[in-house]
Amino acid sequence: MDETSTLGKKRIRISLDAMGGDFAPHNEIKGAVEALREANNRFEVVFIGKQDKIKQALSEYDTEELNYSIVNATQVIGMEDSPVSALREKKDSTIAVGLDLHKERKVDAFVSAGNTGAVVSASTLVLGRLQSVSRPTIGAFFPSEQGVTLLLDAGAVTDCKPHFLHEFAVMGSIYAQLMFHRENPKIGLLNIGEEESKGDELTKAVYKLLDNSNLNFIGNIEGRDVLRGKADVVICDGFTGNVLLKFGESVIGVLKSKFKMYAERGILEKLWMGMMRGTLRKILKEFDYEEYGGVPLLGIKGITIIGHGGSTPKAIKNMILKAEEMIIKKVNERIESAMESMQTVPASGISSTV
Amino acid sequence: MDETSTLGKKRIRISLDAMGGDFAPHNEIKGAVEALREANNRFEVVFIGKQDKIKQALSEYDTEELNYSIVNATQVIGMEDSPVSALREKKDSTIAVGLDLHKERKVDAFVSAGNTGAVVSASTLVLGRLQSVSRPTIGAFFPSEQGVTLLLDAGAVTDCKPHFLHEFAVMGSIYAQLMFHRENPKIGLLNIGEEESKGDELTKAVYKLLDNSNLNFIGNIEGRDVLRGKADVVICDGFTGNVLLKFGESVIGVLKSKFKMYAERGILEKLWMGMMRGTLRKILKEFDYEEYGGVPLLGIKGITIIGHGGSTPKAIKNMILKAEEMIIKKVNERIESAMESMQTVPASGISSTV
Repeated sequence: MDETSTLGKKRIRISLDAMGGDFAPHNEIKGAVEALREANNRFEVVFIGKQDKIKQALSEYDTEELNYSIVNATQVIGMEDSPVSALREKKDSTIAVGLDLHKERKVDAFVSAGNTGAVVSASTLVLGRLQSVSRPTIGAFFPSEQGVTLLLDAGAVTDCKPHFLHEFAVMGSIYAQLMFHRENPKIGLLNIGEEESKGDELTKAVYKLLDNSNLNFIGNIEGRDVLRGKADVVICDGFTGNVLLKFGESVIGVLKSKFKMYAERGILEKLWMGMMRGTLRKILKEFDYEEYGGVPLLGIKGITIIGHGGSTPKAIKNMILKAEEMIIKKVNERIESAMESMQTVPASGISSTV
Repeated sequence: MDETSTLGKKRIRISLDAMGGDFAPHNEIKGAVEALREANNRFEVVFIGKQDKIKQALSEYDTEELNYSIVNATQVIGMEDSPVSALREKKDSTIAVGLDLHKERKVDAFVSAGNTGAVVSASTLVLGRLQSVSRPTIGAFFPSEQGVTLLLDAGAVTDCKPHFLHEFAVMGSIYAQLMFHRENPKIGLLNIGEEESKGDELTKAVYKLLDNSNLNFIGNIEGRDVLRGKADVVICDGFTGNVLLKFGESVIGVLKSKFKMYAERGILEKLWMGMMRGTLRKILKEFDYEEYGGVPLLGIKGITIIGHGGSTPKAIKNMILKAEEMIIKKVNERIESAMESMQTVPASGISSTV
């Protein structure tokens, strides 16, 4: 059996920002090696970054059989750099080089745990938007009783017009269908009450658009419904989504430190905590966003997956594997055709491009 | 020693919506009895609701020494009722009767675990706004490493103008100073990044107002900073605040059910969970919003404290005691004088009433 993953005749190539995360290049290299091993080398990983550092990090592994290449990039956009000025000044940064390669179709995806703002801006500027997409959107994954929930937008667009959120819903629906295997994904509009009349000006207008669309719109959902998995895809503006994502991420950290504090209190507590460690870890892991790897930027002419600065090797591995899956499943082609045929059932003068 | 709590010569009277919560009147009566006992009867509780039901619930306690009275109200606004139409139609509801008494200054506060929307609307309509307050705001308490953080607004005002948030900050600062005993409360603006340039149109404008005010403004804070207690008072629009509050409330429930699920897995897990129960309960309790009782509605001519529908007797007790504390500490008088002298340091044409 030929294990090679190809796009038509071409073998899939995934570029990885080797200097992106807080533990780069170590975690990046380790994650990529694990991804290639797990995937039996059916795609190629293109490491972007300082060649000597990448080679040094790779020397820790038996790489003879691994399907990889290195493209040199001498600069790195740091976490504290301002995205816009850094992109202007650092022409040879890993982000610029990786996305240029993607634009030239020399690679099929770009994966980075670097400066999120810079990756979002550069992806949009360099790759461009898909046909009919007003604003690309960044997703976030929330653990839920149904497994996982996709939230859009998690911070790419802060000031939203109603039709932006409609577009997010269309893109999210396609993503959940293909990547979560949900046949007819349930779309929920994040709001402050369930009734149609609830919400701010934006959500009231979005409700009408979604209600008249051919999406599986289940209506308004509230903050409490996110983790309960009431919807497969949660739609909101990027301000609310970003606040919620960062709040959610902090909960696990705060709980872990509380458990640790209690464990240090006495000998009995210490003993119980020791015995419980495995179970606690399992429970907290379900809520650990790192497990999902990175998040996709949807609506661009290409595949960009963005990871947390502190991405573990496992997170990097998952990001690479998800990028391959998105390529194979032609997520972008499906989004483009859904966006083209995006329609609202004609009703009281409401159109999808209000 | 005279244990009577008085306002000048007058004894403090706190009205309680006896039919408000999901477990009314049982939890309401129990909570009020406990509050009166704990406070040695230094104030009076005025129960509002169906007289026979209240008397029946009170018969379970030794009430001979308790300082209470009953005001009959035959109707109840249910949790599913639309606030506006319910207030119009149910003139003899506990909420309407309780707030009318408060307006007439026959009581000094109104406490309810009933329909939040109805209590907010009725309080604003019946009692009116404090001088210089554009919009009353409902608070929410988040547990934090510093003890507790006040978030404003948690849902009273969804579409906000910049100066509304400035006013929330002034009111929150006074509340935290008097009720949390923080000398110069740290005010944080909830945003999607720390830099001044980050955010949506609203937060960028609010940043300027707060930065030029005489508040102890510590700048933008992110979702992850809320539980870490970076600010004593977190300011945001009511849409974001409401989503965050309900999300936060759901976390404990979801975790509890996960722990329960694991405990049912096997005999060893069951044993460990049994031993751990006390510790787990303590940890989760710190994150349990019920412990804080209810939340204040700030900016109205009166004291309204609103509880969760599922308020426990302990929550009801705490709501009553907090109402007394707000009365004694003259929170409203202090807010009014702070609002009157609310000023921004003159800078680039920015005024507090933009």
